[in-house]
Amino acid sequence: MRRILIFVAIACLSAPAAAGDLPTAAALRDRALSDSTAWNLLESLTTEIGPRMVGSPAALHARDWALAKLKALGFANVHAEAFAKPSWARGEESAEVLAPFPQKLAVIGLGGSVPTPPQGIDAPIVVLKNYDAVLAARPGAFKGKIVVVNQPMTRTQDGSGYGAAVVARYGASEAAKRGAVAYLVRSISTSDTREPHTGSGGFGPDAPKIPAAALGVPDADLLEHMAARGPVRVRLKLASFVRPNSMAWNVSGEIVGSVKPRDVIVVGGHLDSWDPGTGAIDDGAGVAITTAAAKMIGQLPRHPRRTIRVVLWGSEETGGSGDAYLAAHKGELARIVVAAESDLGSDRIYRLKLPPSGPDQRGLKPLAAALAPLKVFVSPDPAMHAGSDVEGLQKAGVPVFSLDQDATRYFDIHHSADDTMAVVDREQLNQNVAAWAALLYLIADSDVNFRAKMGK
Amino acid sequence: MRRILIFVAIACLSAPAAAGDLPTAAALRDRALSDSTAWNLLESLTTEIGPRMVGSPAALHARDWALAKLKALGFANVHAEAFAKPSWARGEESAEVLAPFPQKLAVIGLGGSVPTPPQGIDAPIVVLKNYDAVLAARPGAFKGKIVVVNQPMTRTQDGSGYGAAVVARYGASEAAKRGAVAYLVRSISTSDTREPHTGSGGFGPDAPKIPAAALGVPDADLLEHMAARGPVRVRLKLASFVRPNSMAWNVSGEIVGSVKPRDVIVVGGHLDSWDPGTGAIDDGAGVAITTAAAKMIGQLPRHPRRTIRVVLWGSEETGGSGDAYLAAHKGELARIVVAAESDLGSDRIYRLKLPPSGPDQRGLKPLAAALAPLKVFVSPDPAMHAGSDVEGLQKAGVPVFSLDQDATRYFDIHHSADDTMAVVDREQLNQNVAAWAALLYLIADSDVNFRAKMGK
Repeated sequence: MRRILIFVAIACLSAPAAAGDLPTAAALRDRALSDSTAWNLLESLTTEIGPRMVGSPAALHARDWALAKLKALGFANVHAEAFAKPSWARGEESAEVLAPFPQKLAVIGLGGSVPTPPQGIDAPIVVLKNYDAVLAARPGAFKGKIVVVNQPMTRTQDGSGYGAAVVARYGASEAAKRGAVAYLVRSISTSDTREPHTGSGGFGPDAPKIPAAALGVPDADLLEHMAARGPVRVRLKLASFVRPNSMAWNVSGEIVGSVKPRDVIVVGGHLDSWDPGTGAIDDGAGVAITTAAAKMIGQLPRHPRRTIRVVLWGSEETGGSGDAYLAAHKGELARIVVAAESDLGSDRIYRLKLPPSGPDQRGLKPLAAALAPLKVFVSPDPAMHAGSDVEGLQKAGVPVFSLDQDATRYFDIHHSADDTMAVVDREQLNQNVAAWAALLYLIADSDVNFRAKMGK
Repeated sequence: MRRILIFVAIACLSAPAAAGDLPTAAALRDRALSDSTAWNLLESLTTEIGPRMVGSPAALHARDWALAKLKALGFANVHAEAFAKPSWARGEESAEVLAPFPQKLAVIGLGGSVPTPPQGIDAPIVVLKNYDAVLAARPGAFKGKIVVVNQPMTRTQDGSGYGAAVVARYGASEAAKRGAVAYLVRSISTSDTREPHTGSGGFGPDAPKIPAAALGVPDADLLEHMAARGPVRVRLKLASFVRPNSMAWNVSGEIVGSVKPRDVIVVGGHLDSWDPGTGAIDDGAGVAITTAAAKMIGQLPRHPRRTIRVVLWGSEETGGSGDAYLAAHKGELARIVVAAESDLGSDRIYRLKLPPSGPDQRGLKPLAAALAPLKVFVSPDPAMHAGSDVEGLQKAGVPVFSLDQDATRYFDIHHSADDTMAVVDREQLNQNVAAWAALLYLIADSDVNFRAKMGK
């Protein structure tokens, strides 16, 4: 109730904005809807670089691509910040049912998985309906077996089904503690297509390391159907290696503020991606959307009062870019006005969540009005998550906001070979750019202090 | 106009039906909606056999599976009719962009393709927008090049977009005549996912044999995007081999007619499938639907007047089962009342097309009434196509009908790894069974002479 009242207060507040006028925001927004910058960035990144896992040659190409693009688009202070990031790479991978009904299976290794021996692991399977059944099993229950977890994921607009399902992807260590020799998890996916979806395996330090892979959704069902008939043997082959000394880079560039250049708004997407697709919606889209929005603001006759800094994060998928950034920017934390990341695909934004609300609303009055024509509403609920790469900043006290994207089909595609330009809807991509451009302009050209609102 | 009048005549005709009463048809239909036979058959076939290309060990298993299932479901005269069918099998396949932007590509060899040398073919590409551009090219235009045809397919409810697009899959020979060293075609697919869709390559006798494969839809776009920037080199590796002496089998079983057992209605689906998926919608569904419908009729207290013969065809994907059947059944052609095949997936039926209409409508009066609750209408247009496997019968003068399925999403899946049980909607599958059961019962229990209607 309190939140709703505060929300109404935001919407109705009639104090003059310190800056950030609605007509400029509206014009930016409308231009963005037919602008080609984001589309072209995304097409360039997926075509010229393609998949770009940390530690791969493509990650280095992606760094150079980002530096060149930010410079070409007129950003200032363009540079890359290197950090150490041990990395993992897959080799050949396969799986098949050996008996009783020989069939090939679609699998993809989970990030961080140890390899199998070259001849593979050939073992009986045990199929469990969900991750809780792994946890409930007694010690030794899976001795000598390949554990298969067939836990489905729920489709949701806000993506919240992911959290409930992804625990199963982290189950290898718990299975290993109970004797499993390998771990196969149903892809964390809302689709019924066969491409398996990878992701980090979350291997714990306190359990034997066993090979772990994701099965295509139909393949997990297939194994469950077979297992209902009697014993099933599967052969799993995974090759992988680790580069202990590899590096990653956060690449950034700025639209320098005209009045308070040291007050910084940090936004961006992540440059790194998983490898089966071309990293279009995860997260070429976030890179393209935030870069395009900031670039359009940079082309205004007058820059907004405060600086907009686009950070293209170098290691979201395997963690670490946020920590590295926090360590490198400890000295300016107090000047980071607010932070956010675009990392839930390329489909339309439907909602804005702001930092917890308070009395200081100068400059935010036109916000709801600027976003309404895009069918984006301002939520009375505060932003709780704003992207993995800004979690470090968030924990260190930096306020965050989120422009929430429609994730209804995101997890059909995420971390699979289906993540390519073909699934990107240009109109929805540009709706994202329009929302980011209007919002960033209004915040950057205001003096709003989100920390005051948060009582910090 | 004439057709419409005749259609109205069918619907309104008030002469008493010779047999085939609506209450029995309606009861069959309604039972079918909650029957589990089709679902169980499909689950069994995809789980216990999986993909079953002609000539593979799985094709032999599928034959034995079909014989056992038909017997267990109470069919009479269950047997397999063997015919010679040279077959093709794939080995390891891969493709990648070598320069200027190295990336892996998703490919699958086309049926009948010759292999590449073991080290692959490494050549520059030329990207064409459609198959017409292949035909329009001058002799020698593609000398030393890999031809890439990026022709999209249109989504249609009746599947008619396929015919317009699939010509591109048959383009290798025309490219080879103009000097191409290999041929890559955008998958004949309406989807934007990355699984490539295979199919026969249609290699002509009058052209050099070159390796040919289908690209994932996004991969074809990717190559077009790269080629727009300058020269692109691709390496294609395809392994394959031919079994010149392999066999295939049409498996059949009958619900023997109670009055005119030698008058036969031939229906079925095809047992063989392509190999990347488990052959669920192409065409385990057709096998399951027609078998389940006939089985339910076989369980009636009294069999219909005429015989219903289910033929589970052994070689639809690479042709030949219909010819073999025609050759083996020449002597009874005149007694085949009508033929049809279920081979467009597992989604709902929306329309019935009958043989060309004429004056003899005895027994068909309840037809529209029996199908209407399933939201199936009787088209005024005659059936022109009733499945590849009955084309031989059709050309030999056997009347055909078609129960037209909604193919809106069929070509998202068809001939790709995505063809599994996961995409089958049980309710729609059973709507198919219900329509087939009601229709087959009414036709089989009537004396309608479709040939008279056709003026033959």
